[in-house]
Amino acid sequence: MSAAQTDSPTPVTVRAVAAPGQPDVTPALHELYAGFEQELLVPLWTEIGDLMPPHPRSRAVAHLWRWDRLITLAERAGRLVPVGRGGERRAIALANPGLDGHPFATPTLWAAIQFLMPGEDAPEHRHTQHAFRFIVEGSGVWTVVGGDPVPMNRGDFLPQAGWNWHAHHNQTDRPMAWIDGLDIPFQYRTDTQFFEFGRDRISAIERATPELSRSERLWGHPGLRPIGVGHDRPGSPLLAYKWEHTDRALTDQLQLEKEGHGGTVEPGHAAVRFSNPVDGSDVLPTVRTEFHRVVRGTETAPVRETGSSVYQVFDGSGTVTVGDRSWSVTRGDLFVVPSWQPFTARSEAGSADSDSGALDLFRFTDAPIFEALRLNRFQRDA
Amino acid sequence: MSAAQTDSPTPVTVRAVAAPGQPDVTPALHELYAGFEQELLVPLWTEIGDLMPPHPRSRAVAHLWRWDRLITLAERAGRLVPVGRGGERRAIALANPGLDGHPFATPTLWAAIQFLMPGEDAPEHRHTQHAFRFIVEGSGVWTVVGGDPVPMNRGDFLPQAGWNWHAHHNQTDRPMAWIDGLDIPFQYRTDTQFFEFGRDRISAIERATPELSRSERLWGHPGLRPIGVGHDRPGSPLLAYKWEHTDRALTDQLQLEKEGHGGTVEPGHAAVRFSNPVDGSDVLPTVRTEFHRVVRGTETAPVRETGSSVYQVFDGSGTVTVGDRSWSVTRGDLFVVPSWQPFTARSEAGSADSDSGALDLFRFTDAPIFEALRLNRFQRDA
Amino acid sequence: MSAAQTDSPTPVTVRAVAAPGQPDVTPALHELYAGFEQELLVPLWTEIGDLMPPHPRSRAVAHLWRWDRLITLAERAGRLVPVGRGGERRAIALANPGLDGHPFATPTLWAAIQFLMPGEDAPEHRHTQHAFRFIVEGSGVWTVVGGDPVPMNRGDFLPQAGWNWHAHHNQTDRPMAWIDGLDIPFQYRTDTQFFEFGRDRISAIERATPELSRSERLWGHPGLRPIGVGHDRPGSPLLAYKWEHTDRALTDQLQLEKEGHGGTVEPGHAAVRFSNPVDGSDVLPTVRTEFHRVVRGTETAPVRETGSSVYQVFDGSGTVTVGDRSWSVTRGDLFVVPSWQPFTARSEAGSADSDSGALDLFRFTDAPIFEALRLNRFQRDA
Amino acid sequence: MSAAQTDSPTPVTVRAVAAPGQPDVTPALHELYAGFEQELLVPLWTEIGDLMPPHPRSRAVAHLWRWDRLITLAERAGRLVPVGRGGERRAIALANPGLDGHPFATPTLWAAIQFLMPGEDAPEHRHTQHAFRFIVEGSGVWTVVGGDPVPMNRGDFLPQAGWNWHAHHNQTDRPMAWIDGLDIPFQYRTDTQFFEFGRDRISAIERATPELSRSERLWGHPGLRPIGVGHDRPGSPLLAYKWEHTDRALTDQLQLEKEGHGGTVEPGHAAVRFSNPVDGSDVLPTVRTEFHRVVRGTETAPVRETGSSVYQVFDGSGTVTVGDRSWSVTRGDLFVVPSWQPFTARSEAGSADSDSGALDLFRFTDAPIFEALRLNRFQRDA
Repeated sequence: MSAAQTDSPTPVTVRAVAAPGQPDVTPALHELYAGFEQELLVPLWTEIGDLMPPHPRSRAVAHLWRWDRLITLAERAGRLVPVGRGGERRAIALANPGLDGHPFATPTLWAAIQFLMPGEDAPEHRHTQHAFRFIVEGSGVWTVVGGDPVPMNRGDFLPQAGWNWHAHHNQTDRPMAWIDGLDIPFQYRTDTQFFEFGRDRISAIERATPELSRSERLWGHPGLRPIGVGHDRPGSPLLAYKWEHTDRALTDQLQLEKEGHGGTVEPGHAAVRFSNPVDGSDVLPTVRTEFHRVVRGTETAPVRETGSSVYQVFDGSGTVTVGDRSWSVTRGDLFVVPSWQPFTARSEAGSADSDSGALDLFRFTDAPIFEALRLNRFQRDA
Repeated sequence: MSAAQTDSPTPVTVRAVAAPGQPDVTPALHELYAGFEQELLVPLWTEIGDLMPPHPRSRAVAHLWRWDRLITLAERAGRLVPVGRGGERRAIALANPGLDGHPFATPTLWAAIQFLMPGEDAPEHRHTQHAFRFIVEGSGVWTVVGGDPVPMNRGDFLPQAGWNWHAHHNQTDRPMAWIDGLDIPFQYRTDTQFFEFGRDRISAIERATPELSRSERLWGHPGLRPIGVGHDRPGSPLLAYKWEHTDRALTDQLQLEKEGHGGTVEPGHAAVRFSNPVDGSDVLPTVRTEFHRVVRGTETAPVRETGSSVYQVFDGSGTVTVGDRSWSVTRGDLFVVPSWQPFTARSEAGSADSDSGALDLFRFTDAPIFEALRLNRFQRDA
Repeated sequence: MSAAQTDSPTPVTVRAVAAPGQPDVTPALHELYAGFEQELLVPLWTEIGDLMPPHPRSRAVAHLWRWDRLITLAERAGRLVPVGRGGERRAIALANPGLDGHPFATPTLWAAIQFLMPGEDAPEHRHTQHAFRFIVEGSGVWTVVGGDPVPMNRGDFLPQAGWNWHAHHNQTDRPMAWIDGLDIPFQYRTDTQFFEFGRDRISAIERATPELSRSERLWGHPGLRPIGVGHDRPGSPLLAYKWEHTDRALTDQLQLEKEGHGGTVEPGHAAVRFSNPVDGSDVLPTVRTEFHRVVRGTETAPVRETGSSVYQVFDGSGTVTVGDRSWSVTRGDLFVVPSWQPFTARSEAGSADSDSGALDLFRFTDAPIFEALRLNRFQRDA
Repeated sequence: MSAAQTDSPTPVTVRAVAAPGQPDVTPALHELYAGFEQELLVPLWTEIGDLMPPHPRSRAVAHLWRWDRLITLAERAGRLVPVGRGGERRAIALANPGLDGHPFATPTLWAAIQFLMPGEDAPEHRHTQHAFRFIVEGSGVWTVVGGDPVPMNRGDFLPQAGWNWHAHHNQTDRPMAWIDGLDIPFQYRTDTQFFEFGRDRISAIERATPELSRSERLWGHPGLRPIGVGHDRPGSPLLAYKWEHTDRALTDQLQLEKEGHGGTVEPGHAAVRFSNPVDGSDVLPTVRTEFHRVVRGTETAPVRETGSSVYQVFDGSGTVTVGDRSWSVTRGDLFVVPSWQPFTARSEAGSADSDSGALDLFRFTDAPIFEALRLNRFQRDA
């Protein structure tokens, strides 16, 4: 593993090349640079092009992971690797090839496939890292958050803000896989992470398998909030956003467009953001999550944004383009859009009059970080 | 330079060791891990201890840079390295030995000594990175921000939020050094940085050398804001916080304490935060700046915080302790406090009744990032 | 009408009585007070008990209006009074007997029954006053807000923030009545109101009678917001909160309580607040709206709040107590709770195990005004 | 006193006139209206012109009070009326002739001259009403707020947010007068006021007469806030805004204008807003306070705003115009600008090059109420 923590200090090396507008490297300059190295100093003038580029040039690269390969490896891991205290989760992370071997999909975001065998439990723990689950196929696992069992079915989105106790249990006779998204790289880079082990076994009552979590019964009614229950912790108190609502919202947007009204992002492109009912903000303080539907035969306008995204194809098929990379994609495929690289999605040709066969994309990004700090930029290319 | 950007993808290596609670590495497991590597995947169960520690364990380390060595090297650079377009600034950055040779003082903060020779100009540019200047000694340079010349004298603090045009000019016959602080590492890691060159030469009128910047005349009156001028850009419109005000505020706090009233952080320890008069927030969206005065014979209570700090000794002398490191410090010395490491400062013994000889510390930290995202934690040890 | 605006200045009269701790009214004092009157001055010392009482002592009084009498008079008005430009609406307002004959239910809130005959239109206009509709019985009218026809059925709540064009049309062969709530008294007292006439006739397309408004199709999905549509105007973009959701939310809260979990305000008392999906705030900047369900045999704890409320009984029957007044109430009855008067509701006896027969109360209050200004106080008596 | 609280309910009278577009008043309509009156109901259609005008038409009127008459009456009151518990303050309020004899300068604002004889105390109390003092002439009184004695001198502004204990003492051998501003009418109309008596006598230590209050020593340094002291109560922790700073800020704005830079509201018109250093908001949640300087020979552009203002002439002389009223004004004169009436100020002719002789105006308004509720409108006429 290349990202192991070193205990001995890293030596500092000054790049002894003539920078733009800078003099040749004379012996005197060599001596100065040696002095810098000895004192753990680095001049700006040799590094500025890398450190302060005209626009974001991410070390992360656009990359695609195929769902069929992920699921095959996850199933094999299900047979070989137990789940338990210490390893905590049977999660397998996407490692962006530009990020020094770290298991990071982007500089700020973690994306992994998690796999739970029939009858298995993943033990309880909590951490400051903000997390969510998204289910592209399957069912049968409940995530127990603060004692509240939340069902997981195809299309459901389960946000889980940091420092909530949580475990998973599979009560069925089938294995189940889903996607975990977290801000692990961000918190790793900024040294803000805390972690605690919880109970090794959750109680029998928490093994219930209700169709609705308690959180949905309290917070899942549109525009209605319970008066008797406050919520001042970070992140959404609503622990599941069911597919039926997401699908209906997207269908309604496209239908409004057909009736001649606004509502979509652009013609043939509907999209919703998962939001915190307490204050309308993103469901997690550091992670934005969205669902996009691109009807058949439609291509979205190229968009650039500061910050990075991970997409998963939920349904349909089509072509996605990230900078100078382009892939045909289908259900379950995951890909990364690095900062400021233009992105477009094109749904497979067909009749745009029918919603069926639309390219459905789940997306998560680190945008809330940059909006909170007023570092966000957005550009829609012509 | 060790942090060069690679064009070829980094290979991914799975740590083939038995993790806690995990099985021995069998041939089947070896084969699984090889499959992971081929698909650019990394399992959580072998990495969780590094990625999700019980509390922040920064790769950055506590370290001290002596002012006398910095200033000596800066002066030598003044003679050998020109300032001009391309290199942009004669700035020499502190490179934390735990950060892979990057010129980063902490995972999020840049700290450099900048040096300008008599009669020199540093050319105009702007960038999204938030910056400030702090002057521990000397005078004679004006920073021109958006056409407004701002004087720089010992003890003055000059915030300069991102995307403001700025240049420096030294109108005197003496060189001058000061400290630049920026969020370069944060924006580098998160890919949010933009940069533009400005004019190579500022106008004659901008070479004025007023005692007060225009920003101070508009925004520098306590509790009073101009009605005719708005300010909706990130960061403070007040471009200089003069030493006379900072010194007076600290003196007043200690005097109030002597009179039996509150106001100090703890007995013998006064502190102020530089704030944005528009909304009372930190002067920069990503950087908090403070000034601490510890009277003679006083030791501050150990404090831990998420996020990292850089301190510079402004005056006095004493001992500072960061985790298990401890140094005697004096004027100009710079040191780093990594995330969650306990910090205390002890002023040299003497009469606490006199303000003279107090240990004066300038501090900057990345705390606003974590407060905006509700990731901040603070602990004062007994 | 007693509240007519006078054009000649009101004479000022000084209360020439000995105030607490004040001297007898001597001839010299009489002369001084005459001087005050001539200069339009009033001393504090004779008025302070009225102006600055130890706690709110509203001039508004607790009062009940019976629905059967309101509806009888409204029906008669339906036959006698046309609806059209100038009079604008066939709305009949509750006039609190403590408020000098003004048509104000409370010092800040207007409550009226509005009545529309078969085939009638109420012409389009807009005003800064924030408004809502609540329907205790009937159906058949659509409120057209900004061109969007919104259906009105028993139990539905329709917020309509200020300065939105709106009209009503009754497309059926039955009359319909509902309740209008507005902040007319607040804006009247503070002189903030603007008003404009719109079109006399709305277009044919706006006479559509859909089951869902466009606003609901865009904004009515729980925790989901459209990405392509912004909303930066005051108040909720969701123009209808349907009874089925409100009823479900209340039922769920009570069911959670039975299962041993939190969620209700207090045992047997469920309540929801109508909220703006954009930011989770109240649906109108000046008016809070809530729905309370008190199960059979339950009495709520006495509560006092700054600010005033109007309640309408939606279903069930029981007894409500406001200060020293108490009434048996049933469907449609409206009553007022003045500031800081204790309020309790008791549902008719019966089996608490059944939701049926619960006392259902719709409530609106001026609380957002005082929360925004930090003037709110709340006290739950033992 | 005309505004006495009545115990018997006010009868409701329906205006039995034909409203615009309404039918003649037939016997049947008369009977309907009698039914309304009996049930305490009032129709909208006869009242809408008064209740929902096209723009604010305040019942308050533009009016001027001359300082020489106020001070004469206040001095006489000083000899005749003691200050003590019960009457609380020797304050004499401006009673707007449009407001039914209430001692209210505007529908929301109270303005009074307060007068304290040599050696007198005003006893301690606290109330939720937000208050301030402004001193147009004189000195010698200290306001003790929460135990902190705050000096009062010509030009000083002392905000005092609600629910702070406060008293006044005059330690000199001269009487002193000043202006009190409060939101008494607003809190009276909305029933939010609480009041408590404090100690009858403040302690000897609180009779200190320092030149700076403790609050200024903690919070009065530009852009600097104490780290050791929080402030989460409504309103500014800075209890005095000294004239020297206000005067300097205005002088600087006009000087910047002369140098060719922005900063003033319009040519020859400088203005500052008193602001809360904690968050940059208004010093009081319900009251905005400003200082305007109009140089000789300048006339300000007509401005309309929702909400009402009270002005006091601090220095200079000139002509002010409010709607169709116009007055020559000089030091100390007070006048009222009702909602949406256009206002201009013209300074006496003279050389604009000299600051001396400028018309200096102190202003307070209820604008924060309407900004918090998004009911504010502003219009600068051509």
